[in-house]
Amino acid sequence: MRRRLIAPLLLCAATAHADEGMWMPSQLPDIASQLRAAGFKGDPKQLADLTRAPMNAVVKVGGATGAFVSKDGLVLTNHHVAFGVIQYNSKPERDLIANGFVAADRAGELPANPDFRVLVTTGFDRITDRILADARGKQGRAYFDAIDTATKAAVADCEREAGFRCSVANMDYGSDFYLIRQLELRDIRLVYAPPDAIGNYGDEIDNFMWPRHSGDFTLLRAYVGKDGKPAEYSPDNVPYAPPAHLQVSTRHVQDGDFAMLAGYPGVTFRHRMAPEFANQIEWQLPSRVALFDGVIDTIDAAAAKDANAKVAYASQVQGLKNNLKRAQGELDGLRRSDAVRVRNEQEAALFAWLGKQPDGAVQRRDIDAAQALLRDAAAMRDRDQIVAAIRSFTQLLRASLTVQRRAIERTRPDAARESGYQERDEALIAGQLKQVQRRYAPEVEKAILAHLLAQYRALPAAQRLPEFDSVFGTTDAEAKAKLDALYAGTKLGDEAMRLATLNDANVAASTDPMLVAAKTLLPAYLRIEEEGKQREGELLRLRPAYMRALTAYNKSQGRAIYPDANSTLRVSYGRITPMSPRDGVDYRPLTTVQGIVEKHTGVKPFDAPKPLREAIAKGDFGTTADPVLKTQTVNLMTNLDTTGGNSGSPVLDADGKLIGLNFDSNWEAVSASWMYDPRFKRAIHVDMRYLRWLLAKVYPAPHLLQEMQLPAE
Amino acid sequence: MRRRLIAPLLLCAATAHADEGMWMPSQLPDIASQLRAAGFKGDPKQLADLTRAPMNAVVKVGGATGAFVSKDGLVLTNHHVAFGVIQYNSKPERDLIANGFVAADRAGELPANPDFRVLVTTGFDRITDRILADARGKQGRAYFDAIDTATKAAVADCEREAGFRCSVANMDYGSDFYLIRQLELRDIRLVYAPPDAIGNYGDEIDNFMWPRHSGDFTLLRAYVGKDGKPAEYSPDNVPYAPPAHLQVSTRHVQDGDFAMLAGYPGVTFRHRMAPEFANQIEWQLPSRVALFDGVIDTIDAAAAKDANAKVAYASQVQGLKNNLKRAQGELDGLRRSDAVRVRNEQEAALFAWLGKQPDGAVQRRDIDAAQALLRDAAAMRDRDQIVAAIRSFTQLLRASLTVQRRAIERTRPDAARESGYQERDEALIAGQLKQVQRRYAPEVEKAILAHLLAQYRALPAAQRLPEFDSVFGTTDAEAKAKLDALYAGTKLGDEAMRLATLNDANVAASTDPMLVAAKTLLPAYLRIEEEGKQREGELLRLRPAYMRALTAYNKSQGRAIYPDANSTLRVSYGRITPMSPRDGVDYRPLTTVQGIVEKHTGVKPFDAPKPLREAIAKGDFGTTADPVLKTQTVNLMTNLDTTGGNSGSPVLDADGKLIGLNFDSNWEAVSASWMYDPRFKRAIHVDMRYLRWLLAKVYPAPHLLQEMQLPAE
Repeated sequence: MRRRLIAPLLLCAATAHADEGMWMPSQLPDIASQLRAAGFKGDPKQLADLTRAPMNAVVKVGGATGAFVSKDGLVLTNHHVAFGVIQYNSKPERDLIANGFVAADRAGELPANPDFRVLVTTGFDRITDRILADARGKQGRAYFDAIDTATKAAVADCEREAGFRCSVANMDYGSDFYLIRQLELRDIRLVYAPPDAIGNYGDEIDNFMWPRHSGDFTLLRAYVGKDGKPAEYSPDNVPYAPPAHLQVSTRHVQDGDFAMLAGYPGVTFRHRMAPEFANQIEWQLPSRVALFDGVIDTIDAAAAKDANAKVAYASQVQGLKNNLKRAQGELDGLRRSDAVRVRNEQEAALFAWLGKQPDGAVQRRDIDAAQALLRDAAAMRDRDQIVAAIRSFTQLLRASLTVQRRAIERTRPDAARESGYQERDEALIAGQLKQVQRRYAPEVEKAILAHLLAQYRALPAAQRLPEFDSVFGTTDAEAKAKLDALYAGTKLGDEAMRLATLNDANVAASTDPMLVAAKTLLPAYLRIEEEGKQREGELLRLRPAYMRALTAYNKSQGRAIYPDANSTLRVSYGRITPMSPRDGVDYRPLTTVQGIVEKHTGVKPFDAPKPLREAIAKGDFGTTADPVLKTQTVNLMTNLDTTGGNSGSPVLDADGKLIGLNFDSNWEAVSASWMYDPRFKRAIHVDMRYLRWLLAKVYPAPHLLQEMQLPAE
Repeated sequence: MRRRLIAPLLLCAATAHADEGMWMPSQLPDIASQLRAAGFKGDPKQLADLTRAPMNAVVKVGGATGAFVSKDGLVLTNHHVAFGVIQYNSKPERDLIANGFVAADRAGELPANPDFRVLVTTGFDRITDRILADARGKQGRAYFDAIDTATKAAVADCEREAGFRCSVANMDYGSDFYLIRQLELRDIRLVYAPPDAIGNYGDEIDNFMWPRHSGDFTLLRAYVGKDGKPAEYSPDNVPYAPPAHLQVSTRHVQDGDFAMLAGYPGVTFRHRMAPEFANQIEWQLPSRVALFDGVIDTIDAAAAKDANAKVAYASQVQGLKNNLKRAQGELDGLRRSDAVRVRNEQEAALFAWLGKQPDGAVQRRDIDAAQALLRDAAAMRDRDQIVAAIRSFTQLLRASLTVQRRAIERTRPDAARESGYQERDEALIAGQLKQVQRRYAPEVEKAILAHLLAQYRALPAAQRLPEFDSVFGTTDAEAKAKLDALYAGTKLGDEAMRLATLNDANVAASTDPMLVAAKTLLPAYLRIEEEGKQREGELLRLRPAYMRALTAYNKSQGRAIYPDANSTLRVSYGRITPMSPRDGVDYRPLTTVQGIVEKHTGVKPFDAPKPLREAIAKGDFGTTADPVLKTQTVNLMTNLDTTGGNSGSPVLDADGKLIGLNFDSNWEAVSASWMYDPRFKRAIHVDMRYLRWLLAKVYPAPHLLQEMQLPAE
């Protein structure tokens, strides 16, 4: 009998957990000993270059991750990542979403939507000096703009060669910059997709949940022109020969086995400063929860008697509820991890060490300056939040602010306009203005504004804005009267009138009260925006001191530090790991087809397809059956360090063989973007044995098993 | 790492699980070897007599179970069993429910409500021959009545001695009869109760659930007159000196430890015949679910526009929903256990064996006759269900049927009247008639009847009843017209008019249409009732053949058979056991105070009292802390065989020391009254170490620890 100690409630301050980390491949040789201690059997040096095999088998697929799994360009990614491709090829008479798809041969593979891309990294070069050359000596927004200009120039240079996409990655908050060059494969085809009821079994109900029973995978194939170069779809194209591909494992896995994962995690905040942790946990998340809660209640009350208004606001309310749930989950998680205390203690230890270093005082000056900036921002955070909410939670007022902002931006050359107001954005703006019609009811918008303005008026005088006081008054009665006049007087509730503003060269002089209000309020928004940009520029300049100190401090303790996630290729390692979500409950790290049967109700999202249920009942699992559990496994759980963007990441064993496909993490880990808590951080993968079984026995594709050099059953 | 095989989906036919069984104490010497193999260290012979120590320390308490735990009459039972006593002593200014109670000394102990009883078994004698003497040779109802008469006579004889309560237990469905004599202790006092937020932590939300964190215990004390004999409450009474008491253990327990439990399980159906299992699973439970579902929908629709009707039917709807959930849970469980197939295979094996026995044919004749009776009943089961529903789901019609039935019964001497219609029941009947007022709306009752009558009319002609056809017609239109006339014409909706029927000596001749309808329908109800009694009498005569065969067959296989539960003292044994409720999830068998903190929201039912939370935070658990888990445990889970009535049962270790107090079972085991499935049958107990910790550190009662000969901390 296994007996597990209750995990300690308090994380030790100033120590990262052994399995925490989203490592740059180049760091892996530095952590070779810990990697080997964890069970990795290969040579970490072989993983260090993400432009060489095997790391260049890991590719960006439609905004997430995937991997080549054959020499003929077969790409494995998630069903949910390739969902647009499946949907694009679905017709009422050939419903690939419901029925899945198996291409009988290459000719039967179906072209993806034309904007679907697979990106193969071919260059990853540190260009910090080039990016910072012109920024050095500058401050604030000027510092930011110099980096922006250098970045755009580097990207433009790089993209001169056709067929490549380039970008610059900001590593460690402005400490380093990397130029990333990626081959852009544009002819992608659908090869194999399980039915939605397998690929997305459990859907929203099981989302973020364990135990999980989803076959969330799809096989695509990348094609290129006959010259081997990226090309648009053409029947003459040939399969792309990737520089490397991963081999799906035929060995069995079990609880405790080593696992590693490579992918493109989007964004984390692990190395933010202690005051930022405190701000997030003590103010940002609770105030977001309160804000969303208040707006939801206000909309519910205002729309209670009006069925049309209810429908108009249903989508906004659902969005608010999802955001509220997520914010509450993140808050609960961070509190459970005691993150404020832990981070304060870590930072106190860092500063104590830094004080003893020769250049400690110099670095500390920058760090103190950065934290002073954060304090300044905190002094105005309540105002900034309410003012932003007044724009983002309204329809007509927001549209009017957009119209007036556009009028200002259009006085500048296109390239100099704020992003979102360039010529390329015109269709989007028109779409937003049209969309108001389906999402707006004047009484509800007035109620939302009245609710938010009451909070605005409760702010200390120093946070008040003359523009807001002028438009909405300074008392409850004034606000009511002014809102009544505003919404009674405006003609913008009418779609044609609203769209006409886009062709009105003199809209700034309009007498429509809503446009007048927007014009009056706009300078306040622009001022706050400018303050934010100044601050972001300064932080970009100052934060590297903190990161340098953190890195050096950890090095002095014998520890390496990974950069926070920024959508570049990272590797994490750990093991197949159970979890105790709460007192008395253990989650096993492998699920089996038995769970599919248990969950099956016949009703979406638990409508396991008949062929699957029959195959389970038959029990013919062949070589893919787990030899210990004596049945077919479905999903794996590991403690691998992941975040949004890791969808489709390949999970490898100690020998670099593919054992899983990442597709989700658990609800308890929703706070992991800020802090890795080893008790609760888990990642959820498709067990490759489930994929092999489905291809062998349920929706057979023997030719694909053969192509992947896998046994026929 | 532990690795558990998925439990086999299919139970082996014809074998009982090792830990299944609610054994009569007298059977324990017969199963001594299996009891010792399971880990019991004592002498099973010492447990065989339930009128001697230690078994007579186990007592009936307020309809459930309890045990003496000191030589001075201290009784340990559940908080929910003693809840009426706590409530009886609560006042707004002294809220014992919310705050709990600790009697500072004996003088401070509070008298229970006067009808609260503790019963100590002093006699348990087999009187089968006496009970069956006059029944032999009779059949059907006459057989039943002869047993009934003999039973009443035996009870009357036994109760001649003051201070005792007697009853006759029917063992193995009429095979054996036992005369039980119990000392009736009537002066019971409240000694120690934790606050409701401990004793009932989690309330309805956690009911039937694991992991559990409830301190569901209370200490009472039994008092007697100075002569040592049972007496009503008097300040002069002295503590009762029980013939035996249990010693609370001071040792630690863990997963896998032997456990045994003694108590008064109410009713099980484990030895019902295979056709009864099939009837329950294939007809009774699904048709009950459909019936409840249909009636709920009908009430919801009929009351939708009438707020008063909604309130009037809220309680009935809630009751229907609870019953529906339970029926569905039982059905799900029996299907999961594949109970029809398993029982059919068991019975086929039994009959095959029986065919080879010398007296097999004789026994088989009775068994076949019993099963033929069941088939006859099944032929009319749909009709019987609908006709019963027409009475039980209506208010005014049911009241009228009661009034007309009462009129018939009152023509007989009181002793000969049907139970429920004797002089002692008059107040109850009047109460029922009054209660109609709060639970009745004519439109809703008409809708319910229309709904049920449509089902009635869909029955095959052979099941139709002329009385129903005459009152309600034979078509939809007729039913509608007749219901309209019935409810428009009756005066019984008025409370005074309704109550007046009780004083109307000539109510049978009343012209109120509802009373006329009831008088017309009543003969049909009486006919069905009489058929049922004939059948029950015959089954009482015939079933013993089945039980004899079953017992002999199992004996031939080296197995003993326990009688189905019938509220007599039983012993079950097993171990502290984890559970896998579903694929990928394991429940640990011990919970800890950590779970109390995790569940705490500050809002009922998860409002852990401050002293408890502070004591947990302090972590001062003393000798009661689990040495492996390093924290305080709260509840235990075992695979002990229990059912309703086992509340308050003491759980003993291999040495007979008290380690737990039973208070609930798990939702997955709701079908265990029919079939014990070792994968899912669990019982939930208070860990005695939690009780000791609460008494030592949280709501201290050092004098009670001393009285129970337990360490002070």
